[in-house]
Amino acid sequence: MAGSTFGTLFKITTWGESHGSALGVVIDGCPAGLPLCESDIQEFLDRRKPGQSRFTTPRKESDQVEILSGIFEGRTTGTPISMMVRNQNQISRDYGNIKDCYRPGHADYCFDAKYGLRDYRGGGRSSGRETIGRVAAGAVASLLLKEMGIQVCAYTKAIGNIIIPESEYHMDEIPNNKLYMPNTAYAEQAEKYLQTCIKNQDSAGGIIECTVTGMPSGIGEPVFEKLDANLGKALFSIGAVKGVEIGDGFAAALANGSSNNDSFCHTENGIAKMTNHSGGILGGMSDGSTIILRAAIKPTPSISREQHTVNTSGEDVDISIHGRHDPVIVPRAVVVVEAMTALTLIDMLMINMSSRVDYLRDFYDTHNKK
Amino acid sequence: MAGSTFGTLFKITTWGESHGSALGVVIDGCPAGLPLCESDIQEFLDRRKPGQSRFTTPRKESDQVEILSGIFEGRTTGTPISMMVRNQNQISRDYGNIKDCYRPGHADYCFDAKYGLRDYRGGGRSSGRETIGRVAAGAVASLLLKEMGIQVCAYTKAIGNIIIPESEYHMDEIPNNKLYMPNTAYAEQAEKYLQTCIKNQDSAGGIIECTVTGMPSGIGEPVFEKLDANLGKALFSIGAVKGVEIGDGFAAALANGSSNNDSFCHTENGIAKMTNHSGGILGGMSDGSTIILRAAIKPTPSISREQHTVNTSGEDVDISIHGRHDPVIVPRAVVVVEAMTALTLIDMLMINMSSRVDYLRDFYDTHNKK
Amino acid sequence: MAGSTFGTLFKITTWGESHGSALGVVIDGCPAGLPLCESDIQEFLDRRKPGQSRFTTPRKESDQVEILSGIFEGRTTGTPISMMVRNQNQISRDYGNIKDCYRPGHADYCFDAKYGLRDYRGGGRSSGRETIGRVAAGAVASLLLKEMGIQVCAYTKAIGNIIIPESEYHMDEIPNNKLYMPNTAYAEQAEKYLQTCIKNQDSAGGIIECTVTGMPSGIGEPVFEKLDANLGKALFSIGAVKGVEIGDGFAAALANGSSNNDSFCHTENGIAKMTNHSGGILGGMSDGSTIILRAAIKPTPSISREQHTVNTSGEDVDISIHGRHDPVIVPRAVVVVEAMTALTLIDMLMINMSSRVDYLRDFYDTHNKK
Amino acid sequence: MAGSTFGTLFKITTWGESHGSALGVVIDGCPAGLPLCESDIQEFLDRRKPGQSRFTTPRKESDQVEILSGIFEGRTTGTPISMMVRNQNQISRDYGNIKDCYRPGHADYCFDAKYGLRDYRGGGRSSGRETIGRVAAGAVASLLLKEMGIQVCAYTKAIGNIIIPESEYHMDEIPNNKLYMPNTAYAEQAEKYLQTCIKNQDSAGGIIECTVTGMPSGIGEPVFEKLDANLGKALFSIGAVKGVEIGDGFAAALANGSSNNDSFCHTENGIAKMTNHSGGILGGMSDGSTIILRAAIKPTPSISREQHTVNTSGEDVDISIHGRHDPVIVPRAVVVVEAMTALTLIDMLMINMSSRVDYLRDFYDTHNKK
Repeated sequence: MAGSTFGTLFKITTWGESHGSALGVVIDGCPAGLPLCESDIQEFLDRRKPGQSRFTTPRKESDQVEILSGIFEGRTTGTPISMMVRNQNQISRDYGNIKDCYRPGHADYCFDAKYGLRDYRGGGRSSGRETIGRVAAGAVASLLLKEMGIQVCAYTKAIGNIIIPESEYHMDEIPNNKLYMPNTAYAEQAEKYLQTCIKNQDSAGGIIECTVTGMPSGIGEPVFEKLDANLGKALFSIGAVKGVEIGDGFAAALANGSSNNDSFCHTENGIAKMTNHSGGILGGMSDGSTIILRAAIKPTPSISREQHTVNTSGEDVDISIHGRHDPVIVPRAVVVVEAMTALTLIDMLMINMSSRVDYLRDFYDTHNKK
Repeated sequence: MAGSTFGTLFKITTWGESHGSALGVVIDGCPAGLPLCESDIQEFLDRRKPGQSRFTTPRKESDQVEILSGIFEGRTTGTPISMMVRNQNQISRDYGNIKDCYRPGHADYCFDAKYGLRDYRGGGRSSGRETIGRVAAGAVASLLLKEMGIQVCAYTKAIGNIIIPESEYHMDEIPNNKLYMPNTAYAEQAEKYLQTCIKNQDSAGGIIECTVTGMPSGIGEPVFEKLDANLGKALFSIGAVKGVEIGDGFAAALANGSSNNDSFCHTENGIAKMTNHSGGILGGMSDGSTIILRAAIKPTPSISREQHTVNTSGEDVDISIHGRHDPVIVPRAVVVVEAMTALTLIDMLMINMSSRVDYLRDFYDTHNKK
Repeated sequence: MAGSTFGTLFKITTWGESHGSALGVVIDGCPAGLPLCESDIQEFLDRRKPGQSRFTTPRKESDQVEILSGIFEGRTTGTPISMMVRNQNQISRDYGNIKDCYRPGHADYCFDAKYGLRDYRGGGRSSGRETIGRVAAGAVASLLLKEMGIQVCAYTKAIGNIIIPESEYHMDEIPNNKLYMPNTAYAEQAEKYLQTCIKNQDSAGGIIECTVTGMPSGIGEPVFEKLDANLGKALFSIGAVKGVEIGDGFAAALANGSSNNDSFCHTENGIAKMTNHSGGILGGMSDGSTIILRAAIKPTPSISREQHTVNTSGEDVDISIHGRHDPVIVPRAVVVVEAMTALTLIDMLMINMSSRVDYLRDFYDTHNKK
Repeated sequence: MAGSTFGTLFKITTWGESHGSALGVVIDGCPAGLPLCESDIQEFLDRRKPGQSRFTTPRKESDQVEILSGIFEGRTTGTPISMMVRNQNQISRDYGNIKDCYRPGHADYCFDAKYGLRDYRGGGRSSGRETIGRVAAGAVASLLLKEMGIQVCAYTKAIGNIIIPESEYHMDEIPNNKLYMPNTAYAEQAEKYLQTCIKNQDSAGGIIECTVTGMPSGIGEPVFEKLDANLGKALFSIGAVKGVEIGDGFAAALANGSSNNDSFCHTENGIAKMTNHSGGILGGMSDGSTIILRAAIKPTPSISREQHTVNTSGEDVDISIHGRHDPVIVPRAVVVVEAMTALTLIDMLMINMSSRVDYLRDFYDTHNKK
């Protein structure tokens, strides 16, 4: 189990290395009848494309997606959707100097420990390019969610210690800055901070937040397949994530029950919660409020500053990683967080459909008749 | 998929409600030949048993485990190990008053939204008693890990804002206080804080930390089945967890690459890391350092203070939850965190065994001969 | 993966050995709201109970089931249903003589090869008693199918070479004979044949046929999760099954396309097939006709006649297996075939519910509202 | 779950339609270090290629495979191996006449019942071309098995009623005839029979047999993941298979225990069986003897003779299917049977590696050291 498959009913399998021929994904279990074309996918892929600003790698990659199967006359057929992006701009010599040494903060050492060999070109399978398949599949998941009135929205909450408090969010400003921050003034501060990092031959981390609106209640399976457990796994499966929070997260550890509990109340639209410390999930199931997630992203491990490490023979060496690396991963990871969230939600929404005997009976009274 | 199964090769399925006849677990895939008896399990269960101090519920439950299958002449046979704990001290009337209303911070509302009915007695399946099966199975996983020299150790890092800094850890003091804190002085402070909470008819949260020593490197599968992704899921699947960190966690978001990267170095035992910001995991695989995890636990939602909510008819009501509830869940959840960590590790250790062709060839040259 | 779990959404895990404390099953993923009590289960278990005729083992086992979880006020709650049958009549000394030798036709040798040890008492986990959990779970699956108007019916088509041709089936006669044959005259012939086998210290095999009526069309997933593939796996997972057929089965290999193809036709109830060589499945999906399955059951391997074998030290020995064994397994396996068929169907019916975007949209417009 | 994924640790996902852009497969979980290049795969694909004789479709398809990921410097890296074959010779107009009607014996009707739409060109996903992905993956599985001295060999046992008895097998003659039969004389008879079928605008079925030699004992997991259960599923997942047998198969139903049981005996190479009625599997585990499987293949449903059916509006129509169809599927399915068998075996061999505590301890004493 190399672990490249995610999901139970809406199942994706990603493949591809940074400097191989291509990268891609197969979606198995997409419901039939969804209108889908390559530009729907491309729109998502373009959000993770490098070369968009001076804070992302200057590599030029067109990353054009090709849909190879699963679509007929503009609609999904229920059969596997295979999507591929050819690699075009690999300069393998950039990475030649790291062939024989273990970069600090990278997976090189672990790959050798596990497999006895590794594709060292550009990080191979542990490259950020691995997320191309996730984002392409996430685009399909997002379109499905939209059919049900569910919206997933991720953005940059913090770059280093430039942290936007919730009270200063202006969601309409997210597309106005290259960092996908919901406050232009904070984004400018963050840009200055990143310029300092670059000058220092260093890198920065940050926090991505993601909200889900329009989510029905009762989604998620108690005990091990809790909605938050699967979202937690989805986010921790993204390369640089070192922490995940739902709702109040670590702040809840400091709170008291009386302040942390969300009171239920009666509204004209039915039962609702007066506050949302829970982040939209109680007992592993959606509670009808907005779902709120946060992921802590570590600083890019590839820095041009000299670092100490060892080579594959176990000898001490110093390395500077020259190449085309993002000084911060956060802005490009925003769409990845959104994709992983959407993939988790659609799977659990599909699983939930058989939770009651009534649902089965009604379904088969109406559909798939004898 | 009610989601009560965890693991791929070492697979557990838990069952049981707070006030049903019994609770239990089936372990499927336990390797044959492990010496195992009921007292091995009981030792772990006793650590989560209620009634141990004034900060845990005064309910008296003996929680005696019975092993029903999978053991022959004192050893595991490779067949499913079924374990059961009979419920003995349920006082259903304690909970009668919550039958028709949705307790804030609890899963009552979500259960009704999903299933259309719920076992309201003591929270049913969403009760903390659900963890009995996890802990019983975790005991077996821990014994297996021990055979390979791997030790999992969880403890209370914080209760409310009483947070023990790493520099003041005294691991030998953990068993000396009812809160499982690695510093007796902090534990005394925390006890005082909890007394205040009780007086205020309120509850508290906290942070559990867990370390794994002796872990081989290269364990975990890149991409979706990363070691940290599965540990994250494991911890978020525990009822009250709202945040999870690996290594530096959210602090990594504030750091720079130069400070956050751990340099590799040459030691007499081979390659090692000079620091451990990564928390023992790089690229989703163990890196040979100590694994460090933290889980944020929310305050117990059941408090005797009056709270506003709605009943199942959608009418506004006020409730006080009188019953036998822990003012803080943290100390009893310590062994649950340890169990979930052990269960995740043993599964991934088993999966890793077929990562190289050489391993398969060597294995079948030696074992299961024709 | 000791492999004791079956199903994806409707998932069962069985446990228990022939001579252990108990045997049982956990059903995870049963939809909420199904009326269920112990007598519903007992009815199915009684059909596999030993001691019903001279052709089944004279062991007296009451095999009373206890439901331990998942039911509240007479209905399933959507949480795991744990069911257990205590072992009561084990006479371990019966089996003492086979402790050190490998019985021909049994799994003893393979268990030792795999696990290095085995619970030799009564065959341990490879005993026919292992099917108790399957039958208990199959009872629940059958009740669910009944809610949707689907009926599963298995019976004995052949004992040895006493084979009932389809033209002589009288379904109403099935309960009138101990062999569950749909023709009393053939049943009498079969009984005579079995008496001869007993007299010869020998055993017999046979064929079980199973039909499913009321099945909606389009159930099953193309490619690997075909309905027939999963039914095939389900039946081959039963201990003594050596062959499985769908529809015309091996006879189809002799036929021509013109005779084997079933023409579609227009009927007042919609589209139907004029013949049913396919056995109700085309392209891995149900086609709206009656599903027809057959399983070949090998003769009981335990016979009292002297057989040659080796002991665990590899020495040649002769053994006679004295004990209380069925001269034919077929009649007791009928309900097991029915159970495995029902378990497969309910799982695939649940999986099918998310096959179209329209279904998801309609479902969430109606249920689990925000 | 469109069901296009097979396997637990060695997991494959196939994709692609008959007349789409391409077809392919992703292998996830292939152990690292296996020498592999495109010609290794091509060799297997060429065995299922059409146009090899007058009994296979005259379509010319080069079916050249491209490996897109997972290989570095000629060896597998442990990451997903993505393989693709571009479609080149699709003549969609051939199939235009079946757009609106349900071909007898085909999955057209079921696809519409399930998904509400279908890619009617060449059968879409239910085309025999779907097996390209299986065969490409099976080539890798076969190479892995070879590393352990395990050989899988499939051949045609029967075409229609031309059935070769085991006593007349000449394995060296298999490659000498286009039908892959182990007896040239029978192959000639079969060719004559097929010519008659073609003349009659009809088609034929047959039986494929598969043997596995060199298999270690104890492989397979008792209860639901029995080796025979998984092999049964694997074979039934192939489009035209209507029956599967292990060892004596349906003949065992006619036998007695005394004749059907295989005696164990002592040999210089250890314990062995004196006969092999079991077909190499006892209690769901390999017993060290040759594994023997048989699959019944139905006649090609596409025939040019006029057939009655209905169109998508439910009206009665007559159709003749003119196109380029095999009069018999059997010879091209031989390599598919071999592929599915190899895929099942490698997965279960990998799963078996953690069956004993000793194995884990030894493995981690030797590999993946801290």
